[in-house]
Amino acid sequence: MKNALQFVDTNKQRFLDELIDFLKIPSISNSPKYADDTKRCAAWAMNNLKAAGLENVELIETEGYPVIYADWMNAGADKPTVLIYGHYDVQPVDPIEKWDNPPFEPVIKGNTIFGRGTADDKGQVFVHFKAIEAMLKTNGKLPCNVKFMVEGEEECGSNHLEEVIRTCSEKLKCDYAIVSDTEWFAAGLPTICYALRGLSFGEVTVTGPNRDLHSGTFGGAVDNPINVLCRMMAKLTDENGKILIPGLYDNVLPVSEKEHKLFSELPYNEEKYMEDLGVEALNGEKGYTTLERAWARPSIDINGIYGGYTGEGAKTVITTSATAKISLRLVANQNSMEVSKKLEAYLRSIAPKSVKVDYKYLHGAEPVLVELDSKPVKTCEKALEQAFGKKPVYMREGGSIGIVELFGSVLKAPTVLMGLGLPTDNIHSPNENYSLDNFFGGIKASIIFLEEIAK
Amino acid sequence: MKNALQFVDTNKQRFLDELIDFLKIPSISNSPKYADDTKRCAAWAMNNLKAAGLENVELIETEGYPVIYADWMNAGADKPTVLIYGHYDVQPVDPIEKWDNPPFEPVIKGNTIFGRGTADDKGQVFVHFKAIEAMLKTNGKLPCNVKFMVEGEEECGSNHLEEVIRTCSEKLKCDYAIVSDTEWFAAGLPTICYALRGLSFGEVTVTGPNRDLHSGTFGGAVDNPINVLCRMMAKLTDENGKILIPGLYDNVLPVSEKEHKLFSELPYNEEKYMEDLGVEALNGEKGYTTLERAWARPSIDINGIYGGYTGEGAKTVITTSATAKISLRLVANQNSMEVSKKLEAYLRSIAPKSVKVDYKYLHGAEPVLVELDSKPVKTCEKALEQAFGKKPVYMREGGSIGIVELFGSVLKAPTVLMGLGLPTDNIHSPNENYSLDNFFGGIKASIIFLEEIAK
Repeated sequence: MKNALQFVDTNKQRFLDELIDFLKIPSISNSPKYADDTKRCAAWAMNNLKAAGLENVELIETEGYPVIYADWMNAGADKPTVLIYGHYDVQPVDPIEKWDNPPFEPVIKGNTIFGRGTADDKGQVFVHFKAIEAMLKTNGKLPCNVKFMVEGEEECGSNHLEEVIRTCSEKLKCDYAIVSDTEWFAAGLPTICYALRGLSFGEVTVTGPNRDLHSGTFGGAVDNPINVLCRMMAKLTDENGKILIPGLYDNVLPVSEKEHKLFSELPYNEEKYMEDLGVEALNGEKGYTTLERAWARPSIDINGIYGGYTGEGAKTVITTSATAKISLRLVANQNSMEVSKKLEAYLRSIAPKSVKVDYKYLHGAEPVLVELDSKPVKTCEKALEQAFGKKPVYMREGGSIGIVELFGSVLKAPTVLMGLGLPTDNIHSPNENYSLDNFFGGIKASIIFLEEIAK
Repeated sequence: MKNALQFVDTNKQRFLDELIDFLKIPSISNSPKYADDTKRCAAWAMNNLKAAGLENVELIETEGYPVIYADWMNAGADKPTVLIYGHYDVQPVDPIEKWDNPPFEPVIKGNTIFGRGTADDKGQVFVHFKAIEAMLKTNGKLPCNVKFMVEGEEECGSNHLEEVIRTCSEKLKCDYAIVSDTEWFAAGLPTICYALRGLSFGEVTVTGPNRDLHSGTFGGAVDNPINVLCRMMAKLTDENGKILIPGLYDNVLPVSEKEHKLFSELPYNEEKYMEDLGVEALNGEKGYTTLERAWARPSIDINGIYGGYTGEGAKTVITTSATAKISLRLVANQNSMEVSKKLEAYLRSIAPKSVKVDYKYLHGAEPVLVELDSKPVKTCEKALEQAFGKKPVYMREGGSIGIVELFGSVLKAPTVLMGLGLPTDNIHSPNENYSLDNFFGGIKASIIFLEEIAK
């Protein structure tokens, strides 16, 4: 391993030159205008993987852009297999006029590289390309079996990825998965994200009278579906921010003492958080900190509401129906479908007899939690600490990442989110950038992780 | 007066023929296609008023269709002046295929005349044309001074009427006003409507974060403006349907014992009411009947609500703001502007610190109440009872009628709603119709009213 780490130090400039070549290809997947470039980018990445020494480098074709597959499976059946995920496509560049340099002509300023895809995700996935190369070029072998899956549609919805994972589940079979497509909590703070919230999204419509009524003639006598919907929505939570859906907290894994301590040690500044959002106060479940509320507790949001007259000015109408789109964020061990059923039953139970209730489940995602004491998490901790000289911090993520859920549900593999970005990377925005410390440190962390996970 | 009433009986066929001529003119005011017809209709009505013996018959021009003015002011300054209001324009006829007979070729079946404008409002305003004719042709004079104001834009918003009333307030000056453009509570039940509710319409927007947020990343930590708005809207009323705005009931004239008794004697069928609306339950302020809630109590309705994602499917967004359009129906002696201020203050008081509140007053109308024991109401009661052989019932109306409010606020004249339509008249719909009993009885009632009001 020592040789591999040295190899990184002596090949920094070449690695960087190769990264710049990778970044120069405008693989914007959401615009047909860049279809050829995006395919060219996949070919470039395949060649780089081959040059690194990976075997069975191939394209898994989809109706969209292909998924790049590569592996090195010679470590033996007694060694674990690690699947490394990333994506070679990038976001569009608008507003182009806000870039200080052209997005596809990468520029290095100080210790930071600027350009589209630097952090999201070319610069992050390329870390693992170079880690494999360093190990194979210095030792001729890897300590464990490795597979790559690098997709080209992450920035336009990953529409064909689930199909690929399900169809090729045997090919993609692994013991652990690594995803490097997230951020550290702050610069200088190596971070492991060990949990994601799930989602249960539904839509409720309450219907009252069979036609729009004149609010003068009927106001006060007939229950107004909008007033009713608002009363129902107000009953989603109590005055302490607790969700009132019966049984909702049944399977919720509590925030542990250890997690509470880990989160409270993070350099989180509530004043800055509020200033950034432009709000004068936060609000949420009593008894929990803001980070706990956003990461480790279920939450309920009305994502959209509409009913009646929504144009300019006034119209004195009592409408027939009103609709709310409601999403719940879930934590381990809640289940999206069960939660949806509980929500529906609750909505029906609190609706007055004056209205009919229609409920439609729209979609969901399961929460993910990799135990803090599990082998992949502990290994990742060791790898980041050795590579960056600093003990990593732990965080959870409030949103869902589809790919992680699929790794869990289809491949049955726990996933480590070894993100290498920073909150200042401007991903999806002008002047996207990426720390070269994180790039080179990341390559070393990947080497150490693969070495340690094999033990 | 006896002669005048006899004149009605002996001229029935001619009156009916004239009404049919009036009805044949398609004076659809909301379509430019019928502009010439609508103007022709005004000319026809002017000629008929002249033939009836009215003086100073003229057009008050507006930017839209003219208002017909006519008067007979020879009763002397010690006699009251009565202003009679109606309109010569009619609704469109769509869906034309649902008419059993062509809308502008009136047909009599049994004791009912079918055609557009029969009840709304040609057949009702024409009653007064013929009452004046009967009195002038038999006695050469009227017992009181009379003015007519017959507009041509009632079915397209009366957009120029307020200007006319304000500009010509001296010309239109009167002691009492009669409006015949409403309905009886039921067939065979002569009805006096003695009160209208007012209106206070506003719009509230609550604003939270300065940008749309990802509901995964922020859900549970940041107060969602839609959730907040719903919680605020749920606090507009309590569980007994009482409006919670402080001071809202301060000036509310209670429903008197007498009114409670009058309303409870009306042939109102709650089962049919609900069946017609397609609802299985009603809801409203506890301690009041449905008619009292709709007519004589303040009510609050959300007429429109919107915020966040309102398209198809799901979008996991926490939006920046949400808006509700809120109207209050007012009863004597509430004031629309005062109520608006109370609503705004209340909304601000219940909003959490996590959001900003913007409130916009949109428009209002004052409630109208003519005392049951007042001279015009008592006179109308006598007139209807003598003309129809049945003591009239009393009702209020939940909506506002702009013209009545203007008569009150600009001309300072109490208005009697001597409506002659029936709930089965299909106004604004195919097969509009009008009872000939109400037509001929109405002419007599008008004669008696003018005779009695002069005493």
